[in-house]
Amino acid sequence: MFDAGAELKRKYGADKVFDFSLGNPDLPPPPAAKAAMHAIADTLSEPRALGYVGNAGWMPFREAVAERLAAEQRVPALRASHVVASCGAAGAMTSFFRAVLNPGDEVICPAPYFVEYASYCGHFGGKLVPVPSKKPSFDLDLDAIAAAITDRTRVILFNSPNNPTGCIYPAETIDALAALVADKNASRERPIFMLSDEPYRFLAYDGAVVPPVLCRSPYAVVLGSFSKNLSMAGERVGYLVANPDMPDVEKLIAAVTITTRTLGFVNAPIVGQRLAKAILGEGVDLDIYSRRRRMMLQVLDGAGLEYAVPQGAFYVFPATPGGDDVAFVNYLLSQNILAVPGSGFGCKGYMRLSFSVENDVIERSAEAFKKAVASFRA
Amino acid sequence: MFDAGAELKRKYGADKVFDFSLGNPDLPPPPAAKAAMHAIADTLSEPRALGYVGNAGWMPFREAVAERLAAEQRVPALRASHVVASCGAAGAMTSFFRAVLNPGDEVICPAPYFVEYASYCGHFGGKLVPVPSKKPSFDLDLDAIAAAITDRTRVILFNSPNNPTGCIYPAETIDALAALVADKNASRERPIFMLSDEPYRFLAYDGAVVPPVLCRSPYAVVLGSFSKNLSMAGERVGYLVANPDMPDVEKLIAAVTITTRTLGFVNAPIVGQRLAKAILGEGVDLDIYSRRRRMMLQVLDGAGLEYAVPQGAFYVFPATPGGDDVAFVNYLLSQNILAVPGSGFGCKGYMRLSFSVENDVIERSAEAFKKAVASFRA
Repeated sequence: MFDAGAELKRKYGADKVFDFSLGNPDLPPPPAAKAAMHAIADTLSEPRALGYVGNAGWMPFREAVAERLAAEQRVPALRASHVVASCGAAGAMTSFFRAVLNPGDEVICPAPYFVEYASYCGHFGGKLVPVPSKKPSFDLDLDAIAAAITDRTRVILFNSPNNPTGCIYPAETIDALAALVADKNASRERPIFMLSDEPYRFLAYDGAVVPPVLCRSPYAVVLGSFSKNLSMAGERVGYLVANPDMPDVEKLIAAVTITTRTLGFVNAPIVGQRLAKAILGEGVDLDIYSRRRRMMLQVLDGAGLEYAVPQGAFYVFPATPGGDDVAFVNYLLSQNILAVPGSGFGCKGYMRLSFSVENDVIERSAEAFKKAVASFRA
Repeated sequence: MFDAGAELKRKYGADKVFDFSLGNPDLPPPPAAKAAMHAIADTLSEPRALGYVGNAGWMPFREAVAERLAAEQRVPALRASHVVASCGAAGAMTSFFRAVLNPGDEVICPAPYFVEYASYCGHFGGKLVPVPSKKPSFDLDLDAIAAAITDRTRVILFNSPNNPTGCIYPAETIDALAALVADKNASRERPIFMLSDEPYRFLAYDGAVVPPVLCRSPYAVVLGSFSKNLSMAGERVGYLVANPDMPDVEKLIAAVTITTRTLGFVNAPIVGQRLAKAILGEGVDLDIYSRRRRMMLQVLDGAGLEYAVPQGAFYVFPATPGGDDVAFVNYLLSQNILAVPGSGFGCKGYMRLSFSVENDVIERSAEAFKKAVASFRA
């Protein structure tokens, strides 16, 4: 998609191409990042200024994350010892999967889902088991999840606010899922983990609250990153935290610490850890995303496309006219509009549009969308 | 070992403990790093200043590495397209193994070797096959390597200057290995790769030259990092380069680019890539390591320990009196000297001492070593 967009822009001019295919934050880091980075630069004459830190992370970073997440996830007992600094949320996930999966183990995941999840567990013989979410809300289908659990189920993985739907799972849904997991785990030697991937937690609209997950189950593991909220995706810093009440929580943290090392991460990048620690309370300008969302939904309304209003993240996942999402996305491409077919997220008949793009791209796309939808339907 | 050292220092005082167990550079980054980092800080108000870059790395970094390695490895045809930026040499190695290994494939490696290699290939069903090096030189035993090659051999992995021996493999040895690989590959569908792990290339003593490997075989892949020469081990930046004449070299680079993404690295940390690119020509003060090596060898001479003179890196690998390396290293520990038994590197009867420690630690250890060896022998 990245290449297709670049090619179209070369051919037709950047102002004639509407690229909604990329989920990359395009904002600068928060203003405080600059001074924090200068302060880091000033330390570089010290021995080991950029040296190895422990495989679980730089202790002041782990402590700051623990303090922040104790409040955010309503788990006052959370300590640095329950935190592993990671190479983004992605690195946390592969390290976690390596630590807990045996070959043949299953990872249940509501669909649509970020397609890379299948690779993350597949490296180690894990098998992703997609379970379609309810439509049109895209909330979890708990009956279907319960029915999908087998003896090989090791993890239930979910992502809220969701990529690609923008759905935030309500507190009652998480509670019901936690009850299901508790019930199943009562009779299992190897428990099922609830793995919550939360890079978009900071980004909720219209006063929506993203319910904390860590406090809702002793089997909860939460992954986060500073890629989106601090716009430092390229520096690769995130974390894994485990519920302190988890049976053998120390063993899990020790295992993830070891897999962080042996998978070749060794430690999360030290500049990123120091930077994130210094500006942990900061954030990018959420009003920008809020305005873009409003504009994007107006564009879709104008074109007559149907969608569930995204409650968080910077995606919307409209139904594609005619039902064949690949055909429609290809048609959009011929009109210089780039989207990602829902099939790419395990969910046919929809497409993902990312509104992490400049305002005027959204604005100027209104006519193109309207024309494209009308002529596709004709 | 890290914890044992800290514990001893608490108990007896830092000046009474001689810790030669850690292979971490203890120098600051080169002086130019400071200005380079300030310059990076100045860009942080730009959109995407720390945003994602391509999975293969930031193009100016890849170009700079290609230009440098074209000269260093005597492969003028090397281009950015043959370079993947990685999360250190370790990340490059796991991404490479994931790209080329099928379960059951074998990775031949001269022993002693960095023990983590077994995990790096083991994650993906690869099996490390250690082949003892010649003694006392620790040069490769090519007959033994030839005898170890089977239908499942996929990679021959070596590390020069070597951790733990400090040995530099001579050009003739590499040439003979390349000839062996060429001979075997002539009749194989899936070729054997020569994988050269080179984090210590910059550190050779007494005018020794580390022969380039990339130019010596079309099947050569070289891994490097800036952890040691720029003392930025914690920022995790390295690279993989493949010989441009390799059959299907584009496929290999594409595969490593994908595994870099799907293993969760996504891209090498962007601050580190920008910093390394800015100060690529710089280096830490080699005279410091040279002086430490001289002092360390004097200490060993004084204690009557036998060793192959290390030609590179910052390790020496003496034979342990009595032959039982674990027993001797434990005895040293009781005398507040920390070393790593050769068994930890797949080579009994030796121990690794890292002289990446402050001069006065080496100096003050002379008496302790002398006493320890004498009393152990008594």
